[in-house]
Parts: sequence; structure tokens; C-alpha cells
Amino acid sequence: MNNKSYILGNTEIIKFKNNVDLCIGTGRMGLALQKEYFEQLKFVQENIGFKQIRGHGIFHEDMSIYQEYKNEDGDIMPEYNFTYLDFVMDSYLELNIRPFIELGFMPHAIASGDQSVFYWKGNVTPPKDYAKWNKLVDATLRHLIARYGDEEVTSWLIEVWNEPNLDHFWKDKNKKEYFKLFKETITTIKAIDKRFRVGGPAICGVDDVSWLTDFLNFCRDEKIPLDFVTRHQYNISLPERNGRYGYPKLIPLSASCAETDRSRVIIDSFKEFRGMEMHVTEFSTSYSPVTPLHDTNINAAYLAYLLSRLGDTCESYSYWTFGDIFEESGVPFTPFHGGFGLVANGKIPKPTFWAFKFFKDLGNGECIHRSQEAVVIKKSDGTYRGIAWNVGAKEETAALTLSFTMENANYKGEYCIVTKTVDENVCNPLKIWHDIGEPSSLSQKEKLLLRESAHPLVKTHRGKGTPVVELILERNALIYFEVFPSKIESDRGFDYERAANIEFTGE
Amino acid sequence: MNNKSYILGNTEIIKFKNNVDLCIGTGRMGLALQKEYFEQLKFVQENIGFKQIRGHGIFHEDMSIYQEYKNEDGDIMPEYNFTYLDFVMDSYLELNIRPFIELGFMPHAIASGDQSVFYWKGNVTPPKDYAKWNKLVDATLRHLIARYGDEEVTSWLIEVWNEPNLDHFWKDKNKKEYFKLFKETITTIKAIDKRFRVGGPAICGVDDVSWLTDFLNFCRDEKIPLDFVTRHQYNISLPERNGRYGYPKLIPLSASCAETDRSRVIIDSFKEFRGMEMHVTEFSTSYSPVTPLHDTNINAAYLAYLLSRLGDTCESYSYWTFGDIFEESGVPFTPFHGGFGLVANGKIPKPTFWAFKFFKDLGNGECIHRSQEAVVIKKSDGTYRGIAWNVGAKEETAALTLSFTMENANYKGEYCIVTKTVDENVCNPLKIWHDIGEPSSLSQKEKLLLRESAHPLVKTHRGKGTPVVELILERNALIYFEVFPSKIESDRGFDYERAANIEFTGE
Amino acid sequence: MNNKSYILGNTEIIKFKNNVDLCIGTGRMGLALQKEYFEQLKFVQENIGFKQIRGHGIFHEDMSIYQEYKNEDGDIMPEYNFTYLDFVMDSYLELNIRPFIELGFMPHAIASGDQSVFYWKGNVTPPKDYAKWNKLVDATLRHLIARYGDEEVTSWLIEVWNEPNLDHFWKDKNKKEYFKLFKETITTIKAIDKRFRVGGPAICGVDDVSWLTDFLNFCRDEKIPLDFVTRHQYNISLPERNGRYGYPKLIPLSASCAETDRSRVIIDSFKEFRGMEMHVTEFSTSYSPVTPLHDTNINAAYLAYLLSRLGDTCESYSYWTFGDIFEESGVPFTPFHGGFGLVANGKIPKPTFWAFKFFKDLGNGECIHRSQEAVVIKKSDGTYRGIAWNVGAKEETAALTLSFTMENANYKGEYCIVTKTVDENVCNPLKIWHDIGEPSSLSQKEKLLLRESAHPLVKTHRGKGTPVVELILERNALIYFEVFPSKIESDRGFDYERAANIEFTGE
Amino acid sequence: MNNKSYILGNTEIIKFKNNVDLCIGTGRMGLALQKEYFEQLKFVQENIGFKQIRGHGIFHEDMSIYQEYKNEDGDIMPEYNFTYLDFVMDSYLELNIRPFIELGFMPHAIASGDQSVFYWKGNVTPPKDYAKWNKLVDATLRHLIARYGDEEVTSWLIEVWNEPNLDHFWKDKNKKEYFKLFKETITTIKAIDKRFRVGGPAICGVDDVSWLTDFLNFCRDEKIPLDFVTRHQYNISLPERNGRYGYPKLIPLSASCAETDRSRVIIDSFKEFRGMEMHVTEFSTSYSPVTPLHDTNINAAYLAYLLSRLGDTCESYSYWTFGDIFEESGVPFTPFHGGFGLVANGKIPKPTFWAFKFFKDLGNGECIHRSQEAVVIKKSDGTYRGIAWNVGAKEETAALTLSFTMENANYKGEYCIVTKTVDENVCNPLKIWHDIGEPSSLSQKEKLLLRESAHPLVKTHRGKGTPVVELILERNALIYFEVFPSKIESDRGFDYERAANIEFTGE
Repeated sequence: MNNKSYILGNTEIIKFKNNVDLCIGTGRMGLALQKEYFEQLKFVQENIGFKQIRGHGIFHEDMSIYQEYKNEDGDIMPEYNFTYLDFVMDSYLELNIRPFIELGFMPHAIASGDQSVFYWKGNVTPPKDYAKWNKLVDATLRHLIARYGDEEVTSWLIEVWNEPNLDHFWKDKNKKEYFKLFKETITTIKAIDKRFRVGGPAICGVDDVSWLTDFLNFCRDEKIPLDFVTRHQYNISLPERNGRYGYPKLIPLSASCAETDRSRVIIDSFKEFRGMEMHVTEFSTSYSPVTPLHDTNINAAYLAYLLSRLGDTCESYSYWTFGDIFEESGVPFTPFHGGFGLVANGKIPKPTFWAFKFFKDLGNGECIHRSQEAVVIKKSDGTYRGIAWNVGAKEETAALTLSFTMENANYKGEYCIVTKTVDENVCNPLKIWHDIGEPSSLSQKEKLLLRESAHPLVKTHRGKGTPVVELILERNALIYFEVFPSKIESDRGFDYERAANIEFTGE
Repeated sequence: MNNKSYILGNTEIIKFKNNVDLCIGTGRMGLALQKEYFEQLKFVQENIGFKQIRGHGIFHEDMSIYQEYKNEDGDIMPEYNFTYLDFVMDSYLELNIRPFIELGFMPHAIASGDQSVFYWKGNVTPPKDYAKWNKLVDATLRHLIARYGDEEVTSWLIEVWNEPNLDHFWKDKNKKEYFKLFKETITTIKAIDKRFRVGGPAICGVDDVSWLTDFLNFCRDEKIPLDFVTRHQYNISLPERNGRYGYPKLIPLSASCAETDRSRVIIDSFKEFRGMEMHVTEFSTSYSPVTPLHDTNINAAYLAYLLSRLGDTCESYSYWTFGDIFEESGVPFTPFHGGFGLVANGKIPKPTFWAFKFFKDLGNGECIHRSQEAVVIKKSDGTYRGIAWNVGAKEETAALTLSFTMENANYKGEYCIVTKTVDENVCNPLKIWHDIGEPSSLSQKEKLLLRESAHPLVKTHRGKGTPVVELILERNALIYFEVFPSKIESDRGFDYERAANIEFTGE
Repeated sequence: MNNKSYILGNTEIIKFKNNVDLCIGTGRMGLALQKEYFEQLKFVQENIGFKQIRGHGIFHEDMSIYQEYKNEDGDIMPEYNFTYLDFVMDSYLELNIRPFIELGFMPHAIASGDQSVFYWKGNVTPPKDYAKWNKLVDATLRHLIARYGDEEVTSWLIEVWNEPNLDHFWKDKNKKEYFKLFKETITTIKAIDKRFRVGGPAICGVDDVSWLTDFLNFCRDEKIPLDFVTRHQYNISLPERNGRYGYPKLIPLSASCAETDRSRVIIDSFKEFRGMEMHVTEFSTSYSPVTPLHDTNINAAYLAYLLSRLGDTCESYSYWTFGDIFEESGVPFTPFHGGFGLVANGKIPKPTFWAFKFFKDLGNGECIHRSQEAVVIKKSDGTYRGIAWNVGAKEETAALTLSFTMENANYKGEYCIVTKTVDENVCNPLKIWHDIGEPSSLSQKEKLLLRESAHPLVKTHRGKGTPVVELILERNALIYFEVFPSKIESDRGFDYERAANIEFTGE
Repeated sequence: MNNKSYILGNTEIIKFKNNVDLCIGTGRMGLALQKEYFEQLKFVQENIGFKQIRGHGIFHEDMSIYQEYKNEDGDIMPEYNFTYLDFVMDSYLELNIRPFIELGFMPHAIASGDQSVFYWKGNVTPPKDYAKWNKLVDATLRHLIARYGDEEVTSWLIEVWNEPNLDHFWKDKNKKEYFKLFKETITTIKAIDKRFRVGGPAICGVDDVSWLTDFLNFCRDEKIPLDFVTRHQYNISLPERNGRYGYPKLIPLSASCAETDRSRVIIDSFKEFRGMEMHVTEFSTSYSPVTPLHDTNINAAYLAYLLSRLGDTCESYSYWTFGDIFEESGVPFTPFHGGFGLVANGKIPKPTFWAFKFFKDLGNGECIHRSQEAVVIKKSDGTYRGIAWNVGAKEETAALTLSFTMENANYKGEYCIVTKTVDENVCNPLKIWHDIGEPSSLSQKEKLLLRESAHPLVKTHRGKGTPVVELILERNALIYFEVFPSKIESDRGFDYERAANIEFTGE
């Protein structure tokens, strides 16, 4: 057993920014038409509540936005269909979430080639005619403004394309072509309304140093009104494949954010861009939607660490994704299948769901402790909130014991500690699903069982004087806690101890 | 630690009847107009699902049924207002529950005196004019038939009055007067439609032997078409009072059902009534709605025993009550206050809620084990379901270990065991509420915390061959389990063990 | 037929203040616990949306706030139960409506006498001990602040008592005693938080001149920090009684607001109070909840006039009441019974509901027409909205034709007019209910029929150039209209005229 | 004006079968995943309530059922993904509707060619390997049985393919190939469970005589256990095209059902098939989803005639379709676009919706009148229900007046007539939408306006003695009526006439 004790007194300021709820990822926009998608997102919004949502495919065929017809003179004319776009945006706003718009992929009719990505065949080639692309972007944004108002719509962030530094997302990962696309697009958008904020280059961690450096040089040289930088972060080795699924290794915590940190350094090395917002528009452990790791408790504990860390360099960091309505590798065959989601199909929260819920409940405040196992905050009302985790201990018995003494509490009387624990024993729906036979088609009874099993275990504890929080974190555990002064004001004659220790007649 | 092992083979038939869902109690009918009442009942119906509901006060003033006016000749004329009765019955049917109608108490205008019971002042005196009472009963039932149809309404059971063997429910506990009331009432009802089923004498355990014997003699001698017998059962000593609250002792399990058993013997001693249905139209541990015992885990475990036992002598047994919208001792000051309900105000399920949920899920089947700690059933599909409890062990560490070996299972391959545990550590909202300071007014955050804390802990376990269920029951624990054959049919390439034991790069 | 034509050009400013949604009345607070009450209020809020709600009975017995017990020394001690108050306030805030608190009536335990008002017996006597009253007010407001926050709660207006100028609401209509009550109460409240705004004297139109004058003199002389003045307005003669119901005559429109206008004059005659806000905390046609007039179309048309008029002198005017869950004359026997509500039991909107809906939709803007039959507004976006009515024409055929020419429209192309009509022919649920037999107990089918029948008839009309609105108002009709520029942008190939005039083969 | 009077006495039995609710059409199954689809279907089910639903595309790519992978030996292996099928079937059963399964179209991986139909590219070629097709059918039905039970699933009707008599639905409209498909498929199905009921040939009206005759000959000769015959019925001339839309003429009522009637004759001419059930698995006026006719009042009136007529020869007749989530000609650009649906996007009921609602409310009974304008039924409780329509009168003023005298009523006292009218003046959302400018993107306010405008106008009328129903049907009107005996039982003192004719003071 691993034991650590911390005395938390009045010390220097510890840097910590918690923007957990700024953005969340999603399957392609066409899937947002689905009922099950909506219900999962509703569940996520009711329990966590994100502010923005980002995904691919606004211009993919299933959204049907770009259309053409032949006019009387035989000319091919563009026309735009916003029926489904309205459905999606109405849903988002109904759920109090805004789009972080990613412009892509290419409508077949204006694409320069056939190359596509994913089961759903997103076209990843440049436009054959930039004028048509620009007109499409222009018509779409103007439509949104007409429907939702300019104040609303110009507050939505816009990102140009996705991971152009990979060949399978951008034909020949042609850097020069991407820069052209970026310039054409941002110019089009700013011409509609200067208040729109536009960013890129939406790269992942392949050649990311040169891509980012070149991109910033290009923006500076071409005087492009760049508003923010975007990139992605994943934290695994190349997965080994077995049938439909992939099994990667995790990068150690200490190395996890290296690429993102380096991007921050690059940005700040440009005097024109120093301090510019960076948005991690995708992150997770694995970059593949068939990685059973995503559904485990270690994923939750690992994510807790990342959530304690990403605010150091980034404005937002958007977990990829909120739910498992997702088709990049085809439609999932089973409810648990290693999808990206916080929620499994059947509306079952995965352990990682609770990492986000806990950071949302943590909020912000004065950070009084931050380590590779925990973060603790003092709120302005004098209460404490904290989150602790135990990532990847080797043995099942390798518990971590943490003790925090709040020396700066200045509590006079009694206090209460609430803990909420998520670990492999008490909140592990993947194990329950496995044990009941890994059913691909959940009966209603099985769905309810899995949902019942997927709650944190709540406990309370009372003490007096200087608060001491003692946490036992089992392997891959995640614990949220609150500490607050608590005087018991019993109703006239109510005696808890007596109620809790009943006797029998005849004793 | 107490250990017991049972080998469950093909043995003689064990008697066990599980009618847990036939009926549930409720606060007075006027409270059924309330929104919070409806929401609590909805919650109970969605999770458990009772078939009938019984409570007092159909003719109490707040239902406004009986009214009088002066006609042009100056005569006092009766009129009947069914507006609120319709509201209540519509609500019940919407929630798929039927009334088990208790006729009482007396409308002030036709009462022979002023004596009343409860904070809400139910009048407990006989009618000053039986013709007016009979007309009221007649008008009410005919109205219900007109609104809901005769097939529906004549299927509702009817009980005459409540606990006439206590002075505070029936003036002078006048036995002869009650018999008169019973005869007048049943005669009135049968004249409307012979299909109505009517019973009494709704007594509790005071002079119950003589009351029941005399009642049955009366019915036999007067040739009254009695359809069933009703009585109540509580299981405590006289509570000690402290301020608003009462602290009784519990009767030992072994003595708990003695009075009810004796009533069965009395009924069967009449050749005219042998085998007649008995309905326990109220039961609980304590008979007082300010008994903190009701909110504890021991109450749940004790109830589990009673639920395993009451079907021996009774057709239905109606827990008093489903929820804590209840005013007999006044409006509750705090969410936990020792009310009768399965659900505390704020829609928080108490431990006892789960005893009912578990017996509902148990259902019926071939009983293969029954003891003072457990009941186990084999279902027709070859699976097993069971419930075990540990009532009132003295020390906090006094766990009970139970082992069941299903020798008659004839399972060839692997099986799965699901357990759901409710005990003082994992599902104890009363303790959580106490620890956060016993707030009388719950914030939304506190409500959610309490609800989160009030779930059973779900676990699964796999084995092979003859199933063995090993249960560790902490003090006052209640465990539900299911055992079923379970072959794992993994999707192509899915490997649970590999997912659950991830490695790090560099290891 | 009566014809009037108006040319609406750029003229002088017409005074018109539309505060239709500031406040609405309700049955006593205890009824707010009811499910049917909540559903009616939800329906009203979803369709109209009021900001505040005012009714009697916060301290009535059924709210159970004031309680007493004997302590160990045998002293009677007060205690306060806020369980139900929390239920009600939670419901209100959930429906986005705030209480306009009326403090009353007197809890029995601290009342100086037994005199009561209404079927539900509100005690109308002064406190026997003002210290107890003040402590009750203090405890209640402090509890609300603790639960909902001081910013929220101090924004709620507070009125002291109801209609003390009538003996049946205030024993002996003792003016001096009321002034004492007012002073004690406002002093208590301001001591909690000066931001609270408190008003009175909540009088109706009996001796109102002397009451108001004396009250203002008292406030001035005693330097009482009065925040606003309150009074009531009803507009009928003494009803003739027939059985349960009353049949009054209506005061002519021209005389309807005389008393309220006079109150304005009185207030403004005090230099200390000149321009002080006046709130009409109750108004309707009849002051009795068994006046079938309330359910008719003439009531709606009459109300439309009052809604066009009351803003001249008052800040808010609170229609008495939103729904028919109401017990002042006992529980209603039938869905339509002349109750005060905008909505009849069964969630059926009465014609008057639409008067409020229409004024809510009208909103505010530049008033360009106002007469005894209509009000017309030009909105800041250049569109028009108006409401017209035809009150009490004698013959069924006595239609009123109104024509408005919007000379200041400056519309270049086509425009569209939308009208919504409520009259005795197209939206008259009372007649439908009468014709189907006046059932006291509505079947589900009858409820749906009545709801279906209770919608305005919607029509549209297109024109070009200067808009001309031609309205035909049948007897007691109420019409809402909008006028806006409207260019038809047909989809490629869509031809409405062709679709609407289909032909048959072989023709 | 056209006037007709009918005396309805005790006459011979008039044939009339009303199976309006047996089945309804739908866009392809993949669209059933959509939220908007679900909400429209929910609306339809709550208001009308159909028993079965039939559409295309169970095996289309977007349902992802048929999949292939390469095993370790490099063989291509089939696998089946039922994730989305479960979503759809769960939704249907939740809405209390069962699938009428149409097997088709061909998964690309087992198709013999590339030919496709519709915007969504349903593959219409025969299987390249019938074993693979049969295995797909087998796996799908066995999965459904495993999930929903054999009793449930074998009660679902199954139809093989769609309109094989058209080249665009079945390559080369190859009759022999279809017969082969039919035989293979039905053999596969009956081998799973003989209780399954299977039919075809799902033809439309092109070469239908020879197709049906040949099909029945084939079934007889090959001893195929055919359970029922299916065909389609549309009632227009070839539409003229304008841009996106089509403008056909309607076939006169008298000729509308000729093809279907002829199919009945053909079936009955086979002694083996005489009296066999025929299901019209699609019908409407136009067969194109961009025919503005569908949204008009004449469509509703025309449909009323068809609904009065189709039961003569058919068991079910499934209107194509319930809603406008439909993509055969692409995603609709505007809410009203001539789609097939009873409901327009935005959940706006079209006039034809009410034709179905009215026939559902009509139900069955003794038919006492049936003509080209009306059908009237006497219910077993002595009340009457009827529907009347006025199809395609030439001038806007060409009203039809119908009078029905119920000579066989034997009503002693008063009666009530309820009418619900849908015509171009009172329930014409297409006109409202046109008048407000034909917006392609509806604001929330516009949606509400359109819904408000799309209700029947409800009226009531009272009479005495022999009931006489007088109906004035404006051009393209549709009227539903009920007649029932109605005694007014007024509450004590309630006087409707007095309430409805209020007076003013001073008069």
C-alpha cells in the first residue's frame, strides 16, 4: 500500500484552470438527427452540462446541405438545403449547447477527388473550385444568422477542417493546399461578420511541430486574422489489432501532455501570437473507436489526471466524444465496444463520465493542492472540493492512501466530508456487462441493471476541528470529495443514534 | 461472524406465497390531490408497481363529497360533490393502481358527535342517521360505476371503517355499533351490485381475539355476505417519547406474526368461513408516523422477514405506507422524520423501499429455501432468485455469512450471480442526511446527493458447474441475488481481460 | 351593423402601457400543493407566462407554518414548519413565477377571535399578541432568504392582509387595527432587509376613498416607509342568486375603472406619494367564484377593454385568478361553474384566457390607436399588432366592422395579415359543454372535445401597398391581428395556386 | 348550391368495413432512427393510433445489418449487426405499433449489380447468391424472435420486396427472378416458424393484371404457402413537372379503385385463393413525394372517399405515409413540399391527417348510409357517427348541403349533434404557410401559428325528437359528426341562457 499525507496550509498560489465544460466531442453531425443521440446528449447535459460541441461532417452528404440542379439554360446551379441543419441546431440549443463548428468534409459535387475517410466515407479532397466552397460556407453561415441571430451565431467558434496533417483526412496531407483552404475560408467568414472567431490547423500529433510552425508563419506572413490555434491530443501507442478491436498501451502520465505543451511553446515563440488561445478540439486516451480501454476504470482515472493538467496550456479541451452513437468504424455491434463516448449505448454512463461530472462539480477556486494523484480547491465560501485518482497500479490490491489536512480551514466546530467513489468494485459497468455474458442486444432488464451499477458510491463522514480527509483509492479509483462545516440542528426530539441502534423487546 | 451453509437439492415442497405487490397503504385520500404525493406514488409504481392502494378518509371534509343545502321549503337536502374523488381516481388509474376502498370517516354533517382522530380531525363517531350514511355510500359507488364502468369498479375491494376496536378510531370502541354499521353498509353495497366484495372488521391488535370472534359470529348469525376478513399488524413495544419522536423496541422476528396467525386460526375455526381470504390492510414495524426506526436499514431487513412470512396466512398485506406525504401527526418538519413511507419527501427511497422492490423482482416460483434469514426460489426457466437479510445483529461487525449450493441446478457450463446489496454502509440515506447536518429544508443539491446515495450496490460474479452463492451480510443488510447460466459470446476480437489490464509504454 | 374606419398615420403619441403579464391571482396557497393546480398553472405559464402570482392564505392552517408545543417547563413555544411552503415556492420558481406575497390570514393559535371567511375558514381576526405575529413574519421571510437567497427574496413584493375594509375579511373592518397591523408588519420586514418592498391597504371598492386617504395620512404621519399602494377592482352590480350561482349585471365600460382612477388621484394628491406605484392586486368582472359570466365570451371582450386601460393608472393588475382550483365557495361541482379562472378544471382555456394571451403577444411599442374597441401598436421592426373587441352588442347579429389603414407603414411590396378570432361561434367551450348536457364529471373524450373547441380561429390574408386591416367582430368577439411585410420566396417550382386548384382527368 | 336529403330508416344492411387503423406507411427504416421521425410518429399514434407500419429499406446500408469480414484463412464471412434494428423496433413497440415487414432492398455486398432507386440509392438487383440472402433473412428473423419472443414476432406480417413490376424497383422488372426470390424467401421464413404470414407480389398498377395472374399461377403450381396478396393504389395522371415539384390531375372518384377491384376479382377467380386477404400496402393520391396536392384540403376529402371504399375489397390499406421525414426525392427543402405525410415537418397535421382521425373515431357499427359524399353508422349504444366530404367542387362557392334524418333513432327527448369541420377556410395550414411567405425554415412562432391553424372547427347543436343532421360542406370540406341523446342536468341554479346573455347596469 502506497501512503501519502499532505498538510494543506496557506501557501503560495498553485496554478490550476478548470475549463472541463467548455467543449465536448461528437460523432458526425448527421448522427445528431438521431433520437438515441439526442437522448444521450440530453443525459450528458442534464448531469454535466457542456457549453460547446464539436464534430465532423457539417457538409457531409447525409446533411444534404449542398445540392445542384440544372436550370433552363442547362447550367448547373448550386442550391442549399438547411432542413437538417436546422433540426440539429434546434436540438443543440434546446439542450443549451452551442456548436464549435468544424468546416468539413467536402461535398462530393464540389470535391476534386474521391478519396474518403471512415465507414461513412467523408470526402477528404480539396474543392475543385474554391469559389463554390466559399459560397457554401457563406450561404451556411448567413442562413444560421438569419435563423438564430447574429449575436448568437457570431459567438460560435469555427475551425477549418480536421487533421490535415494526416493523409487519410486531407489528400496527400498537402500543407500548402490546407493553407490555401484556410485563407480562403477565413476570408469568406470575416467578410460576413468580423466578430466570427476562426482557428486552425486542427492537427494531431504527426509532424505537428513543423505543421504548427509553418501554419503560424503563413498566418503572420499573409496577415491572416487568426483567432486561435487548434490541435488534438491522444495518449497511446499503436494498438494491436484483434478482430474488430484494438489494444494499445497507455503513455505514462508524465509524458502525456508533451506534444500539447510543445505547441504552447511554439505559439508563444511568435510575438504576434504570444498567449493566443489554444483549443484542444479532440483528446482522449485512444484515437480509435474500438478500443475497449475507453470503457474501463483506468480510462477514468487517467482522464482525471488530464483534466487537472490541460488548463495549463489550453483554453478548452474537448473529449472525443460524449456518446457512442458513432460510425467511423461502422455501427457498433455491442453496447460496450470501446467507443469514445462518456456514455455507452443504452444510456449507461462509463467510469470516465464521472471524471467529467466530478471536474464539473469541482468548479474553480483557490487551488491548494495539485499532484499527479489529486487536485484540491478551496472555494470562496470556505468549503473544500477535491478529486483524487490512482492510475494503473499494478496489483489489484495496490491501493493508494491519501491524507489531506486542511490547516487553513479555521473551522471551529464540526465538519462533514462527502466522498463519491468510482472504482473497479463499485462502479464498473463494463465488468457487469462482461459477467452477464457480453450481450450484444440488451434487454430492458439488462439496461436497468447496467445503469444501476454505474453510480458512484456515496459516503459521508463527520469530524471536528481541523478537517482531515483520508482517502483509500483502490486500483484505478477516482474519488470526489467535499468538506464543509456542518452543525447538526436536530428537530425537537430527533435522535439519530437511538434510531440507528434499535433494541428488541425481551433483551 | 455467523456462518451458515445450505445445500439446496431436490427436496420436499416448501410453502411460500409472495403477494408483495397486491396492496400498499397511503395517507388520507385528500392528500392524493397533491403533486408531491403523485410524484412519489409514480416513482413507487415505476419501480415496484403495486396493484391496489388503501388509506383513510374518502368521506373526510377535504374530499368535500358530502354536502347539504336548504331547498325552497327550508328542508336540508344532501348533495354530493365528486370533483375531487374523480381527480384522485383518475390519478390512481393513470398510475395503474386501484383503490382498496376503506369507507370512513364520518362527514361532520351526518356525524353523531364531534370526536375526531389525528391532526387532520377525522370524525370517528357513528352516523346520526344511518339512512344518510347509506345514501352517501350508495351515491358514491354509483358515481364511480357511472364514471369507470361496473366491471372495473366492482373489482375494487371495500373495507368498512378502520380499527373500530380502538376508542380513538370509533367512539367508545362500541362493538355493537360497528356491527350495525357493517351490516347497513354491506347491505347497501350488495344492493347496488352483488359482485362488490366487502370485508371487515379492520381491527388492530387490541382485544383482537374477541373482536374477530364476535364479528364472525355476528356475520354468521345475521347471514351477512362477508367476503373477506381484514386486520392490521404492527411489531413494536410502546414507544418512548422524546419531543416530536417515538423510540420503540422491536418484537423479535419469531413473535412478530403471532396475532395474525391467531386470526387465521379463528377464521378457520368457523366452518362457514374456513379458508376465507384475510387481508392485512396495514402493517409495518411501528404504528406511529414519527418513529425514526422506519427510515433505517434494520427496518428494511425486518420487513424482508415479514414479506417472506405473511403470505402463509394472508392474501394481501399492505405496508403502511408508500410515501411520506402524511399528516396524522401533523405535517412533517424534516424530510427524514420516521414517517411510514417507502419513500421520504424529496423522492428519496428508504432502505425498506428496496425490500419491496426485491420481493417484487423475486416473484413466485418453486421455493427451495426458506429460513429466518433468507428465501430462495427456482424459476420455471431454471434460474434462481433469492433474498437474504441480517436483522439486528448486535455489533457493527456482526456479519452473517450465508452459502447456498444449488445442487439441483444441472448447469453444464458457466453461470453468473448478480447481487444487489442494501446495508448501512452502501445504501443508508438516513446516515447521509444526518451527517450533512439533518437539514429540514433540502436544497436541490442535497436532494440529488441523497438520491445518489440510496441505491443498492450491484455486483456480479461468474462461476462454473454447480452454482454456489456466497453472501456476506453486514449488520442489517439486505441482499437480493439472481443466478443464471451464462455463456460469454464475445464479439469478434473483444477480450475483456486484456481491456481490464492495460499496460503502459516503456514498461 | 356597426362600421368604423380609422386612418392610422403619424400622429401624436398615444399613451398606452401594457403590463398584462406582471401578476396573476390564485386560490389560497395551500391549493398550490395540488397536482391539478400545478398543471393548470404550467399550462398558463407555457402559453402566457406571468411574472408574479398573488393569493391568500400563506398563514392558513393547511400550510401548517405556525405550530406550538409545550416545553419541559410547560411553556407554550412557537415553532415553524416550512415543509409545504418550500413545496409551493419550489413549484412557483420551477414555473418561472414569483410570489407577490400577501400576509394573511391569522393562524388560529395566535388569533384574537374565531371569525372566519370562506368555506375554508380563513381566520380574519387581529393577532392576540403582535409579538407572535411579528415573529411569524420574521421567521417566514428569513427562512425564504435562507433557502432562495436574499437577492431573490427581497425582490418579491409584499402586501399586508386582504380587503380590511370589509367586515368579513377583517373583524369589524377596524381601520385603526389594520393600520397597527400594517405598521408592525412593515417595521418587522424592513428590519430584516430594507430592500423588501411592502404595500397596502389592499382594499376593495367599499369606503375606498376614506380608507385610502386615511391610510396615506397614517403612513405620512407615522413616517412609514410605504413602497406602493394596492387595491382591487370589480365591475358588477350585486348578483341575483339562484341556487349555487350568481347573476350580476356588468358596469358599462365607460364607468368600469372609475374607482381605480380615483385612487390614483388620491395618491397623487399627497406630495409624499405622488407617482407612487399602484398595484391592482385583484380584478375581474365579478367578485364571486360562482358567476357563470366568467366563463363567457363577453367576459373575454370586457377584459380586453380593461387590459387596454388599467396601465393608465397602475403598475400591475392581477386578474383574479389563473385557474379554477379554488374553494372560497366550496369545491366546484362542475368543470364550468363560473369560477374566476382563465382555465376551467380539465385544463380547458376559457375565452378570457385568450384575452390575456393576446395582450401578452401584443407586448409594447408605439401605440397608434386606442379606443373603446381596439388598441393598435407599431413595433420597432415596423410590423403592427392589434387587438379589437365588441362588448355586449345586443343582438346576435350585431357585428362591429372595424377598418384600420396603416398610412405610416411605408411598405413597398406585399404584406400579410394574421388574425386570431375568439367569439361565440368559433371558441366557446361553455356553449359546447352546455350542449353536450353540462356534465359534472368529464370523460376523457369530453375533455378533449372541449379543449379542441377552445382555440382561436386563425386566418391569414395578403395585400399590397398600404396595409388595410378589415375586421368583422361578431357579438362579444375578440380579435388579435398582426401585419407584416411579406415577400413570397417560393421554392424552385412550387406553385401554390396550382396546388390549391387541382383538376381531374377527363375534364 | 348542391342539396341532398336522406331519410335514414331501418333498411337493408349496407356493406361497410372500416379498417382505417390497420396499417400506415413510412419512409425507409433508417429514418426511423431520427428524433423528428419518432416525434411525428408519436404524435400520429397519440391522435390516431395505427396497428402496423410498413416501409422500405430494412436491409439498406444505413441499417448496417449485413456486414462481411475476412477471417484468418482469408475467407469472406458474413456477420450481422442488429444495433439499429433494435433501436427501430424498440421505438415502434414503445409507440404501440408493429412492423409490417417489407424485405428489401439488396445489401450492396450480396447484390448482383449496382442499379439503385431513390436519392438514398436502394439497390434493386437480385442477390448474387440466394444462400446469402436466405441466411440474412433467417438471421434477422431469428434475432427478432430472440429479442421480442416468438409469439410477438410471428404475428408480424411479411411482404417480399416492393413493386417488382417496375424496372426502377427490380432490375429489368424480371418476373421470373421475382418469383424465385419469393419462393426462396417464403421457404426460408416458414422453416423458421410456420406461423409467420408471408405475402406478395407488392405490385403497383403497371401490368398488374398479368403480374398478379402469373404470380398466383406460380404459387399454385409450386405449392407455395402464400398467406396474402399485396398491391398498391395511386390515383393520378402523370404529373407535369415544374422545378422540384409535380402537378398531376386526379382520377375521378368513380374510377379511383378500379385496379384494386380488378385484383380482388383475379384473386377470387382462383379457387385456391378465393377470399384470400388482400393488403394495399401503399396508397395515396399521388405516387410522388413532391406533389403539393398532398398538402391540400381536396386531398383530405378525396381520401375520405377512399377510406369509405377500400374495405370492400381489402383487409388493410396503408396510406403512404404517416410523416414527411422522407428522402426518396432528397431531403425536403421546405416544411410544405407535397410530401406523402399526414404530418408536415414541424409536427403540423395536414388536412388529410383529419380524414384518418375521423375514420378512426368513426369505428365500426351498423352502416345506415353510404354514398359518394358520406358514410353514416349507428353504434350499438344507439348513437350515430358519420363523415361527409365534398370533393373537387369547381367554384369556391360550390357548397354541398347534406341532410340526414335518423328515422330509426327512437330518441324520446333532446339530442346533441357535434360537428368537426376541416375545410379551406378553417383548417388549411398550407394556405397559412403560403400567406406568411412560404418560409423554408420555420421559426418557433411560425410553427406554433401553423399548428394552431390546423385544427378542425368544433360546433355543437341541440334538437329534440327525430335527429336531423344538416351539414354545409364548402368546397373540399370534410365533416365528422356525432349524434347522441342528451338530457341537460344542470347543477343547482345554473342557467346557461342567463349566463350567455348578460345585461349592463343602467339598461
